[in-house]
Amino acid sequence: MSEPPRAETFVFLDLEATGLPSVKPEIAEISLFAVHRSSLENPERDESGTPVLPRVLDKLTLCMCPGRPFTAKASEITGLSSEGLAESRKASFDGAVVRTLQAFLSRQAGPICLVAHNGFDYDFPLLCTELQRLGAHLPQDTVCLDTLPALRGLDRAHSHGTRAQGRRGYSLGSLFHRYFHAKPTAAHSAEGDVHTLLLIFLHRAAELLAWADEQARSWDHVEPMYSLPDAPSPEA
Amino acid sequence: MSEPPRAETFVFLDLEATGLPSVKPEIAEISLFAVHRSSLENPERDESGTPVLPRVLDKLTLCMCPGRPFTAKASEITGLSSEGLAESRKASFDGAVVRTLQAFLSRQAGPICLVAHNGFDYDFPLLCTELQRLGAHLPQDTVCLDTLPALRGLDRAHSHGTRAQGRRGYSLGSLFHRYFHAKPTAAHSAEGDVHTLLLIFLHRAAELLAWADEQARSWDHVEPMYSLPDAPSPEA
Repeated sequence: MSEPPRAETFVFLDLEATGLPSVKPEIAEISLFAVHRSSLENPERDESGTPVLPRVLDKLTLCMCPGRPFTAKASEITGLSSEGLAESRKASFDGAVVRTLQAFLSRQAGPICLVAHNGFDYDFPLLCTELQRLGAHLPQDTVCLDTLPALRGLDRAHSHGTRAQGRRGYSLGSLFHRYFHAKPTAAHSAEGDVHTLLLIFLHRAAELLAWADEQARSWDHVEPMYSLPDAPSPEA
Repeated sequence: MSEPPRAETFVFLDLEATGLPSVKPEIAEISLFAVHRSSLENPERDESGTPVLPRVLDKLTLCMCPGRPFTAKASEITGLSSEGLAESRKASFDGAVVRTLQAFLSRQAGPICLVAHNGFDYDFPLLCTELQRLGAHLPQDTVCLDTLPALRGLDRAHSHGTRAQGRRGYSLGSLFHRYFHAKPTAAHSAEGDVHTLLLIFLHRAAELLAWADEQARSWDHVEPMYSLPDAPSPEA
């Protein structure tokens, strides 16, 4: 298998949505932080050793009102509700979201690597579903990296597969606590989770950049989480 | 004079640039937080009485590499430099910035009121210059509010013009310290300053919303900070 193209810009991503995959969720909030590779290669740290966010960082956060209701759990966790989003007159994930996203990504030096935690099982397939519904595409050479299997894989390689390693938690909160001995701020807002993800990435940036260079997957291989009845069929 | 249209969405804005008006500065960073009026009318506060940011908030921050150099002072204050921006492969304030900005604003319920601190003397004319250079426009019924004269005017009205009031500082930092007895975070990053501005606005939201309804100016009346030699002449 050929290696993925070496990404120039890493776009850290998180979605909040109306529920888990079983309910065919819709996106209610998307946040992206775009960071050039050069800022990840030599991250600065504060006095306590915690990485600081790169000074040159592009950011986009958008809220949208889904057509279907939130599960009670999703609404509780995210702090979002259809009523709150409608009160702020938010439209759904529509053409204007796609235009904003595409214009935002067009400002980033390519190839782009999308990075999400648990991205292969949640964020990437869900984003793929919403884009497919609108017939929209990401830049052609976009690749993607899921930090959950990447960090598990890196730890497994270090520990030679001892059991202690396998029992560790790999949620964003567990990783953040393990690395920085603190609780992340603003968990389960899309932007809060991207912030946490970026700090985690910076903490192990050299290893994760090397992992991405070898193992990032092409965005073209991401399958939608589900297909909508009115979506253009991929075979068509 | 007719009243401005009642704004539905308030878009808080800050620019970092290569210097003060005398050097004909270029924008190096723009940050916008879009908040619907409904979230400003009844802001939540934490235990200490400090307003908390609305949960439904759209955010856009973009960095760009100016064609002309930063003054030493501007580079020192903002933490940005042509070298750092070029290392992150940032383009200048170009068509992609305009497309991102326009798509982002098209997601917000209009009319939109742009809000900036010292906006009439700095941010609005400078943004107008950059947009004019590219022949770009904001939504037609956009209005704008400068919180610096607005807060001075509100305080003057309360104090009946006593001298003590006149000597108070009205920089973002002074206001933040007066209202919240703390230093703002991330001063002189565009996003940090918008965050500070939004908290200040929320602290006096009822008065500032009423002020905006009466005194916001049409964006059409904003004059560019300076005209570029290759800019289309406004008379043409």
